[in-house]
Amino acid sequence: MAVRTPDPDPENSGPLDEGSFDAGSFDDGTLPGVGPGWLSDIELEQIRHRLPILYVEAVPVRVDGLGQVIEVGLLLRANAMGEMTRTVVSGRVMYGESLRDALFRHLEKDLGPMAFPQLPASPVPFMVAEYFPIPGVSQYSDDRQHAVSLAYVVPVTGTTEPRQDALELTWLSPAEACSSQVAAELEGGRGALVKAALAAVGVLP
Amino acid sequence: MAVRTPDPDPENSGPLDEGSFDAGSFDDGTLPGVGPGWLSDIELEQIRHRLPILYVEAVPVRVDGLGQVIEVGLLLRANAMGEMTRTVVSGRVMYGESLRDALFRHLEKDLGPMAFPQLPASPVPFMVAEYFPIPGVSQYSDDRQHAVSLAYVVPVTGTTEPRQDALELTWLSPAEACSSQVAAELEGGRGALVKAALAAVGVLP
Amino acid sequence: MAVRTPDPDPENSGPLDEGSFDAGSFDDGTLPGVGPGWLSDIELEQIRHRLPILYVEAVPVRVDGLGQVIEVGLLLRANAMGEMTRTVVSGRVMYGESLRDALFRHLEKDLGPMAFPQLPASPVPFMVAEYFPIPGVSQYSDDRQHAVSLAYVVPVTGTTEPRQDALELTWLSPAEACSSQVAAELEGGRGALVKAALAAVGVLP
Amino acid sequence: MAVRTPDPDPENSGPLDEGSFDAGSFDDGTLPGVGPGWLSDIELEQIRHRLPILYVEAVPVRVDGLGQVIEVGLLLRANAMGEMTRTVVSGRVMYGESLRDALFRHLEKDLGPMAFPQLPASPVPFMVAEYFPIPGVSQYSDDRQHAVSLAYVVPVTGTTEPRQDALELTWLSPAEACSSQVAAELEGGRGALVKAALAAVGVLP
Repeated sequence: MAVRTPDPDPENSGPLDEGSFDAGSFDDGTLPGVGPGWLSDIELEQIRHRLPILYVEAVPVRVDGLGQVIEVGLLLRANAMGEMTRTVVSGRVMYGESLRDALFRHLEKDLGPMAFPQLPASPVPFMVAEYFPIPGVSQYSDDRQHAVSLAYVVPVTGTTEPRQDALELTWLSPAEACSSQVAAELEGGRGALVKAALAAVGVLP
Repeated sequence: MAVRTPDPDPENSGPLDEGSFDAGSFDDGTLPGVGPGWLSDIELEQIRHRLPILYVEAVPVRVDGLGQVIEVGLLLRANAMGEMTRTVVSGRVMYGESLRDALFRHLEKDLGPMAFPQLPASPVPFMVAEYFPIPGVSQYSDDRQHAVSLAYVVPVTGTTEPRQDALELTWLSPAEACSSQVAAELEGGRGALVKAALAAVGVLP
Repeated sequence: MAVRTPDPDPENSGPLDEGSFDAGSFDDGTLPGVGPGWLSDIELEQIRHRLPILYVEAVPVRVDGLGQVIEVGLLLRANAMGEMTRTVVSGRVMYGESLRDALFRHLEKDLGPMAFPQLPASPVPFMVAEYFPIPGVSQYSDDRQHAVSLAYVVPVTGTTEPRQDALELTWLSPAEACSSQVAAELEGGRGALVKAALAAVGVLP
Repeated sequence: MAVRTPDPDPENSGPLDEGSFDAGSFDDGTLPGVGPGWLSDIELEQIRHRLPILYVEAVPVRVDGLGQVIEVGLLLRANAMGEMTRTVVSGRVMYGESLRDALFRHLEKDLGPMAFPQLPASPVPFMVAEYFPIPGVSQYSDDRQHAVSLAYVVPVTGTTEPRQDALELTWLSPAEACSSQVAAELEGGRGALVKAALAAVGVLP
């Protein structure tokens, strides 16, 4: 059921990057009697106003030999209005897809195939972020939808090669990553998410 | 945005109890420009084969004066085939609804208005349970859908009065709650979830 | 084994407040064959340079009806040099004492008998703080000793009445509690601990 | 401050294995004005009846490419009475030593220098185990002392080579590791600790 091949046709037009959906990626034979899981853009748009959409997010980190976080990786990219924004690894969980598979797929999509992320042994996230379409309801917002995101800290041990629309993966120290300037550049209120990640691993200044 | 009034027309026909959906419960005015969040039974059935559905679950517990868990509450009820099964508090998160609101709503629905549950200060669940429509993909299964559930341990301090189709809330010791007999009676593989809850609070034998 | 009576002779001379040790508090009969657990000031001083000392700490909070943290309680007091400093509930774990008993004892000591703290169901802390005698080794320091502290977020539901040398318990909003001014007033680097507490419950701005 | 060299003179006479203490391992110059941290056997024996002693423990696991735990490693050894018992990686935290350093030191001591353990990014343990000298006070006991242990799940990626008095490191499936037979062989009540570890990573059956 793993979906680890690169997405052939990325769509990343909004704050929460869902990744493209490749209907052929699922072995439909494993889920007999249920639908194909395929969603047209129009259908997805409609569902987004009906149900909370499940996401996974990953804050990539570099660790030293004792596991201590020393750097945080943030993606830099231009949004639809040409502004430079920062974000973390983020994407939708597909029908029939496990959380681990979704996490791995989005890490590979955003960091490239040689990042060698160490997925956590525990499925429990360090934070659950609730994105509402109206700003101010919670710390996080996404004007496209109501999304609930399970967020993980993921050490990467290899070489990152940002793909798709990301221009760059920037490695920052914990102090830099939680500066007010970086927080302002993080879209959807993810400055709070990065701080929570740093706090969870004991390095928030 | 809170939806805490009792559900007037409960529907609890399956392993994961979503609660009824009362379209009028949402103040649509708070989410201008988005749809009403209303789902007919047919639409919900269709979406369940297209997207993972977000749930919250609560394992009700009694604690002593120092917070130590001394009893676990399990719901007893008859399923569609007339068999007695056990379950925990469980239900769907609605569009625009916060996790805390959903948790409170389902606790009140299943335990009554006088249970006085102490919702956790942290939104991080003790476990994320992945229910797949095909048994064996994970520890948990739900033949109606792919559901992802955020599960919490919730101390209740008042009087429980099971409502809807639940016949009884049974208080069991940790040792009883993780017996193989009780695990077999817990639907959808929730024997593992109850054990994980006991382990998380340090009382799994 | 519980030690919940108020400490008759408090000693709170340093950054980590150990509480007094009342040899008579333990029922020595429950631990036959082992020593009385009594430590003179001189012995304690010596041991502090030989072993890491185990502490528990509690960040008191007020929560709303859905468990969301709305205020954080910080203790204000004058240190040995007459400076006003802030701290959280903190104290040593005694020989033979459970973590829950120690947590309850120090909460009662610092917040009074009517605070009605809700001790967590889980014994897992939100953070483990390592206090070293040399500043800079970690985020936390204590010039008297090497201490390792298990830190918990504890909702209090009653009336607080700071005792001993604490002048006042101040309730602050999450935004106030993590301001740089408050962080500078928190002794031993506990500004980072308060931020980690807020992050753990999802309210760090 | 790291103490990662193998212990030259192991002493492992009891349920909780503290490792030997090599006074020369510490660079005393980094802690000017404080004692050498050296404890004779007699002094340690006395202190054990005066204070709770801080330990770290690690449950070694093998994970698949997605981070899912597939095997648990348990140490097999003969105790003082010649009985075969099982245990996990366990040892005392020394004065001035960080938790990460202590964890690494004991992992290397028990699994050999080629185990390549992946220490967790977060310092928060999956469980805090309280060992009392009297059985029955908690799930865990240690007739030598009152010990409080911070327990971590640690993936190992290399080759294990048990040292000291351990005869063997046995890799078991999650189902085998939580069998009642294995639980009975685990000393000090650590059957509950292994189950809690499996539950924390979502694989307790």
